[in-house]
Amino acid sequence: MNGNARERPIGVFDSGAGGLTVLRALRRRLPGERFLYFGDTAHLPYGDKSPWAVRRHARAACARLVAAEIKMLVVACNTASAIALDDLTRRFAPLPVLGVVAPGAARAADTARARIGLLATEATLKTGAYTRAILERRPELSVVGEAAPVLVALAEQGWHEGPAAEACLERYLGALRARAPDADVLLLGCTHFPPFRPTLLRLLGPGVTVVDSADATAEEATALLKEENLLRPGSDGGLVGCTVSDNAERFRRLAPLFLGEEITEIGVEGSD
Amino acid sequence: MNGNARERPIGVFDSGAGGLTVLRALRRRLPGERFLYFGDTAHLPYGDKSPWAVRRHARAACARLVAAEIKMLVVACNTASAIALDDLTRRFAPLPVLGVVAPGAARAADTARARIGLLATEATLKTGAYTRAILERRPELSVVGEAAPVLVALAEQGWHEGPAAEACLERYLGALRARAPDADVLLLGCTHFPPFRPTLLRLLGPGVTVVDSADATAEEATALLKEENLLRPGSDGGLVGCTVSDNAERFRRLAPLFLGEEITEIGVEGSD
Repeated sequence: MNGNARERPIGVFDSGAGGLTVLRALRRRLPGERFLYFGDTAHLPYGDKSPWAVRRHARAACARLVAAEIKMLVVACNTASAIALDDLTRRFAPLPVLGVVAPGAARAADTARARIGLLATEATLKTGAYTRAILERRPELSVVGEAAPVLVALAEQGWHEGPAAEACLERYLGALRARAPDADVLLLGCTHFPPFRPTLLRLLGPGVTVVDSADATAEEATALLKEENLLRPGSDGGLVGCTVSDNAERFRRLAPLFLGEEITEIGVEGSD
Repeated sequence: MNGNARERPIGVFDSGAGGLTVLRALRRRLPGERFLYFGDTAHLPYGDKSPWAVRRHARAACARLVAAEIKMLVVACNTASAIALDDLTRRFAPLPVLGVVAPGAARAADTARARIGLLATEATLKTGAYTRAILERRPELSVVGEAAPVLVALAEQGWHEGPAAEACLERYLGALRARAPDADVLLLGCTHFPPFRPTLLRLLGPGVTVVDSADATAEEATALLKEENLLRPGSDGGLVGCTVSDNAERFRRLAPLFLGEEITEIGVEGSD
């Protein structure tokens, strides 16, 4: 690959603002890279939709990023990664396409002793993608998943800590503990969940390691860029473009909760 | 109107399963009526979308019900009622079209002494529709609104009571109390909220009356049918058709939480 390719931005796609936790992790590990973010807010949440609808929306959304001559596509949406990654990889080949499921599953598998508890959306769990990826790597492990849709709403409300967050987390953890009392890894399989990490660590105590897919994905992206000789050195990177398909105002309000800072310019591209 | 018109079903439209609380209230008051329900699940939640998107989706969804020769259209979605009711009324005239905002606002206005607390989605609040309708009826009242998106997720999880519901409700009620300590009516301006009524009554104590738009709308629908001589007598009515635009499986699981009983046959009509 030539220097030009290296200068190209990395495309990051999510159904909404949650994927900004992945962008945050990417920026932390790749300070020289420039990023384009697309949030398909006209169709969120993907987690409630049928596989057919998820594939269709993901395809349309990613095509916009690919049209901007990106050097890598990061599918920062767990539901889309679980359901649509093969389809997207084929469609946009030879562009490197990276989802969040495989890296998160790999890190959880490498960390666990016996059993993994998994919090995700209903749609992500239903695909079985995390469990499959974990068992391919370490067939002797077992995975217990729990759908945690309330956490998505809590995260968007900014209630990452306090009595409401604790009561809801306790209820989900209780359900996991009842089914997997010996789990020693809790895998956060939804981009909305990293903000709960401090509260989770306190509730779980020292016996359980919390793994989140966002950071695992950023680590994997770094390795992939090095391998393909596409890494842009330096530290003058950042978010160079952010577009959503509906309701930029709401996205603007949510952005700091997941990215840790404000996004001032947010474009809107009318959606189908 | 002739007898044939009386035999026609009533169309009930919502973005998802929440509108089943309105259907439940309608069936309780109108046991002879037959209902067709359409849930635009491909595009839920409307509460997060731009006014433009809400109008467009509501129009397409209601057109499906109207095509089935209904005698009345009930827009059981607060967001759509607040944003799209005028548009729908014009488009489908002379069909009677009833939203949930005006009836809920009227009942709250007639009940309150001085101030009304309003829980709704962000989109519904932003339209100002409830406040406008209340002040038109009683200009001396004041209305304090609080967006409560977490309650939507809690309702869909089936957590209407218990520590998680209480912690989240307390947080929203606390925000309302801080801004309106003298409110004597709490208006539930979202179809997802009626299931919280028992917990709310306990948390609020005797000084506050809880008004929900679902029952107020059913009362208004009854009056309108009588006025137009369209009431179908008897008690052999019920839900005669239920269609969603995506993910019937999820709708089937949610239905009992809002309707109080299962829906066995749910059709799916591919959405744009």
